[in-house]
Amino acid sequence: MTLPPFSHTLRVRYVECDMQGHVFNAHYLTYFDLAHTELLREGAGYPGSFEDIGMDVVVAEAGVVFRAPARFDEELEIGVALAEPGRTSLVSRFTVERGGALLAEGRLRHVCVGATTFRPQPWPDWLRDRLAPFVVAPSG
Amino acid sequence: MTLPPFSHTLRVRYVECDMQGHVFNAHYLTYFDLAHTELLREGAGYPGSFEDIGMDVVVAEAGVVFRAPARFDEELEIGVALAEPGRTSLVSRFTVERGGALLAEGRLRHVCVGATTFRPQPWPDWLRDRLAPFVVAPSG
Amino acid sequence: MTLPPFSHTLRVRYVECDMQGHVFNAHYLTYFDLAHTELLREGAGYPGSFEDIGMDVVVAEAGVVFRAPARFDEELEIGVALAEPGRTSLVSRFTVERGGALLAEGRLRHVCVGATTFRPQPWPDWLRDRLAPFVVAPSG
Amino acid sequence: MTLPPFSHTLRVRYVECDMQGHVFNAHYLTYFDLAHTELLREGAGYPGSFEDIGMDVVVAEAGVVFRAPARFDEELEIGVALAEPGRTSLVSRFTVERGGALLAEGRLRHVCVGATTFRPQPWPDWLRDRLAPFVVAPSG
Repeated sequence: MTLPPFSHTLRVRYVECDMQGHVFNAHYLTYFDLAHTELLREGAGYPGSFEDIGMDVVVAEAGVVFRAPARFDEELEIGVALAEPGRTSLVSRFTVERGGALLAEGRLRHVCVGATTFRPQPWPDWLRDRLAPFVVAPSG
Repeated sequence: MTLPPFSHTLRVRYVECDMQGHVFNAHYLTYFDLAHTELLREGAGYPGSFEDIGMDVVVAEAGVVFRAPARFDEELEIGVALAEPGRTSLVSRFTVERGGALLAEGRLRHVCVGATTFRPQPWPDWLRDRLAPFVVAPSG
Repeated sequence: MTLPPFSHTLRVRYVECDMQGHVFNAHYLTYFDLAHTELLREGAGYPGSFEDIGMDVVVAEAGVVFRAPARFDEELEIGVALAEPGRTSLVSRFTVERGGALLAEGRLRHVCVGATTFRPQPWPDWLRDRLAPFVVAPSG
Repeated sequence: MTLPPFSHTLRVRYVECDMQGHVFNAHYLTYFDLAHTELLREGAGYPGSFEDIGMDVVVAEAGVVFRAPARFDEELEIGVALAEPGRTSLVSRFTVERGGALLAEGRLRHVCVGATTFRPQPWPDWLRDRLAPFVVAPSG
């Protein structure tokens, strides 16, 4: 597996672990959101650069495949790779790893919207340029 | 103990329980918020009646004393009793019970604010009137 | 669309809504979990009947497609339809509706495990029998 | 105000912010929990050192005073100061600051328990010794 072009490290919180001693499944979507936020910050000055031009994103699809549980206090690496952005949408692929072991994989599809209208609008060119380093062609 | 003038029943969610098999402490503040919302709905047409006049509330203080743990799938009764409202603030007292057994007690202090300014403003008279049935004089 | 064989109604909590005024995406997986829990309770005596025989479930896959936002205080109907259970796995399909309008769709794949080993094990026959009324053949 | 003897920095998550654009009140207790965990890790090898001897902690009381809202993406410093431990209990005082501005203050009272019995038991002497650097005499 090739390394994802961006990765965010976080530590599992006690509040995120359930009675099985595992991170509850819904929190993986929050982990994806956190890593995506950090990618957008590093790559594109989010959130300020988005707010300045009245742009926001909404999530249109989300998916996770769970391979092995994450547990309290573990350090997780959330890898992110973007697909080539569509006109208004953006698919991001995520991996959740602990010490190199793959615990989960997933994807989000975001849509670019007006911050007050919530209507889809095209990604601006400057954003496409700045996200280009994080785009990975789908393997095949 | 006298019965609180309002009570809201909820069932403990799996996501709210931690590795000890107990509801994680922070979620009790969410339970208080839920019961307070239901009291305001029943007594005063919240949230619509608040939104209509650009009024909102913020939480200024919160406290909980934990006596016994609540567990997954248990039905809890969240009792609420209001103190006489101040000019801009409102203290609410909460009990968390399971089948008559007291599991926790707490309090919130809300402040009435403008919905966009977030500046404190006096509770309107109509709200004082409508909350009166839920006001309990402090014991002792 | 045919009606799902099971449905659970819940009200959106304030804590679940984000700065966009929408239910944050991860909470839909919690909604699915809640509805699935209620189906298992009604159909199969969960959680007691599972605990009695040292059986538990884990989530192996999760997915959501978001069509329109859900908002604070709205009453949502979470519909659930099961696919024919596999040997150790069970796919559930979910719809999130508000007053008949479809807001989101999703699926979970659960796996039957030993409550302490977390190793996959076959669904017991009594459970297959009791879940049969909630099984819907895939359309197509 | 003297500096607290321990401090943990975290960034506000999108999922933690409500429709007012503020961190929802309950999450401050989670922030306290995170900072307390980090203090125990640095000072006393938590969680491994606790697990090794079958010791755990439960929260018996929690309180927060909110002075100004925290918002999405802000970096917060969570300061922690311990009071002299009692026989089985431990009071921790917390501050939430953003760039030196005090946003909230609070306290937790933990109780030392057996990890399986959940019965109160005295703090071991080694723990008292290791927590001593974080103890601050109450002012006044």
